[in-house]
Parts: sequence; C-alpha cells; structure tokens
Amino acid sequence: MSSPILHGYWRSSCSYRIRFLLALKGIPFESKAVHLVKSGGEQHSESYVAMNPTHKVPTLEIDGLTLYQSTAIAEYIEETHPEPRLLPHDAPSRAHVRALCNVISNDIQPVANVGILQRLVTLLPQDSSADVKAATRDDWSRHFITTGFLALEKMMTPKSGRYCFGDEVSLADVFLAPQVYNALRVGVDMSLFPTINRVMKELELLDAYRSAHPSVQPDAER
Amino acid sequence: MSSPILHGYWRSSCSYRIRFLLALKGIPFESKAVHLVKSGGEQHSESYVAMNPTHKVPTLEIDGLTLYQSTAIAEYIEETHPEPRLLPHDAPSRAHVRALCNVISNDIQPVANVGILQRLVTLLPQDSSADVKAATRDDWSRHFITTGFLALEKMMTPKSGRYCFGDEVSLADVFLAPQVYNALRVGVDMSLFPTINRVMKELELLDAYRSAHPSVQPDAER
Repeated sequence: MSSPILHGYWRSSCSYRIRFLLALKGIPFESKAVHLVKSGGEQHSESYVAMNPTHKVPTLEIDGLTLYQSTAIAEYIEETHPEPRLLPHDAPSRAHVRALCNVISNDIQPVANVGILQRLVTLLPQDSSADVKAATRDDWSRHFITTGFLALEKMMTPKSGRYCFGDEVSLADVFLAPQVYNALRVGVDMSLFPTINRVMKELELLDAYRSAHPSVQPDAER
Repeated sequence: MSSPILHGYWRSSCSYRIRFLLALKGIPFESKAVHLVKSGGEQHSESYVAMNPTHKVPTLEIDGLTLYQSTAIAEYIEETHPEPRLLPHDAPSRAHVRALCNVISNDIQPVANVGILQRLVTLLPQDSSADVKAATRDDWSRHFITTGFLALEKMMTPKSGRYCFGDEVSLADVFLAPQVYNALRVGVDMSLFPTINRVMKELELLDAYRSAHPSVQPDAER
C-alpha cells in the first residue's frame, strides 16, 4: 500500500490536526498543498471538489479511501491504528476527551474560519477600509476563540495533567495545538488560560508537534 | 439508577439530536427546559454554567455523569448502549457516517446558531430596523445551510438507501433531521436536495422521530 496523501494548507487548523495526529501515530505521509486563497481558493477547483464535495481541507487518501472532515478522520485513524492510543480506555473519559475536541471543532474553529470571515465583512458598509475589515475579522475571531477557551480551561483544569487529559497525549491535544496557533495569530490574550498554556509548553517538546507546525510545511509563506 | 435527565431547548437542533438518539435507543429520559432567549438566556445562569461551562445546550445527566457536546454524547451512548447500532460495523463506513454528521455539526450548525446570529447583526449600521436584522440573520443561515446541504447531498447520494447510509438508521439521520427542521424555519429551498428529502420522508415515519420533534416538546411555543 502506498503512503497516505494529505491534501491540506499549512495554516489551516484542521489540516494541522491531521498532520499532528499522523505524526503521533508514526504514520508517514505525503503532503499536497491546497492554497485556500490563491486563484479564489484551490479547494473550489473541479479536481478538488470531485474528491471532496465540502470544498474544505483536509482530505486524506489512506488505505484506498478518500476521507475528509477532520473529526471523522481522527476517529478512523484511532480505530485502524490504535497505537499509541489517543482516546482513553473507559467511556466516561472518552466522552470527556471528545467533548474537549468538540468545543474546538464545533464551537470555535467553524465560526472563525476563512469562509465565515470573508462573508462577515460583506455586512459592513460598502466603503469600509481594508483596515476596518481586518479589524472586524480579528475582533470576531478573538471573541469566539476567547469564549471557547474560557470553557475549555474550566473543563480541562480538574482533569489535565501534563497534557489536556492526564499525562498521556490524547485527541484533545491534537485539536488544541492548532487552535492555539490561530489564537496567537489574531492576538487572543492567552494570559487568561494558564492550564492551556501549561499543556502547550509540554506539547512544544514533542517531535510530532514540531513536525506538524505550520511554519515548517513546504507550502508555508512568511 | 434514575432516569437520564436531558437539559435542552425545544428548538435547539443539538438538543433535538439527543432526543432523537435516546428515543432510537429506547432510553427513557426526563426533559428539563433551558430557555435560550428568556432572561438573557438560561444557559448563562450560574446553576447551568456550574454544570456545563460551555453555556450551551444540551447537557445530559446519565450513568452518574454530566455530559455535554452532542457529538461526544452520541459517541458515549453508542459505546454504552450499542443496540440498535447507529454506526456501521466497518471502519470505512463509520468514517463516512461520521463525516456526514460532521458536515452538519461543524460546517452548518455552529455558523447559524443563536450566538452567532446575535453577534452578526451588531455589525450592521446601528439604526438598522428589526426587519433588516431578521432578514440578515435568515439570509446568513440560508447561505450556510444551503452550502452544507449541497455537500451532504453529493456525499449521501451514492451510499444512501432508505436512510442516509444504506437501509439502517444511523447517527447521520440523527443529525440530519434537526438541521432540516432549521432549514425549513429559515426558508431554505429544499427542492435542491432530492436525496435528503427522500430520507426525511422515511424518518418522518419513525416513532422516535415524532417523539423527538420540537413541536411536541413540553416547552414548545407557537
């Protein structure tokens, strides 16, 4: 079987999740860049949409399958490549880790993604400057990331250890790191989240984290 | 063990998912209403947030646990109450069903929920009328529901049968029905989605669907 191919974008947090996940699982893969802005967005190209009708990244070609939606991909990889385990053994703990993931994947990421931010500024007066539009987008992103992180921080604090849940890396960490990267980009006040910051310091020590970071991807731009 | 308690709101699509899920699994439960608009939103009350720090519905008290985030709840119920099975046996099919769920839970529902719509209209000129605000909200919702349903329709068509995936009810159906209810509320042109419509006709025949419908909940308003 040939290596999996990950179609993604260096700065897309959902692509970053899957890069981090595959690296943690020790699954080598090939990256193919899908530029989300250039030429109106390559995710809308005929060839891409034929593979992934959601017009979003990432898409993972693996085991002869074409998978998309990063949560579904994560569950598939966890089922088919169970080591190292990224979901705890018992159902209540699994529900907790999945809830942490869902706060990021449902409450935070979708409401501050590129499609939403592009549509948002069409509501502003037509003569709004580029600066006003950029400030509106960043303010919107900061609001929803901060709100979501306040919830995450409360959820994590009693059950976190070295990582989001106890002392083993889990899917919650896989989802957290990319969202923190986005938070820093738009200037979220991270001093509000001591538990998240502590966990991030641990994640930064991992080779898998480093290899998955947007800044070291072949399609990274300055 | 006492009956599970579902804290939700009649018109919340995430609450509706869990009502439908519990009914399909044959798990009796007690409903407690959390009014999302009255008094600034009961989901923000001190007592509710102590139970669920995300300020969102639903919350499910079950098996001595307090669970939230509807996708995490659905996975927990599937693991602990496996019959009738709502995820297929094989990993590739499970990935497909989860991807259908994720398009709804990540790409559609979050970007048109009450918190987003409330914040959206603050971007309009301050003197905008209530009618303009309502039209802006509905237009926004229609856009993202239509975009998401176009993807879902393409994903479902080759693998649907009587239901979203083959001839057995799955989690994809549990997530679909509440989103279609929302789509109808804001006037989405459903003629674009023949496969979704065909599946909905089948779901409407199920007792579990009928008992979970917003219109028959104790807190339903006209």
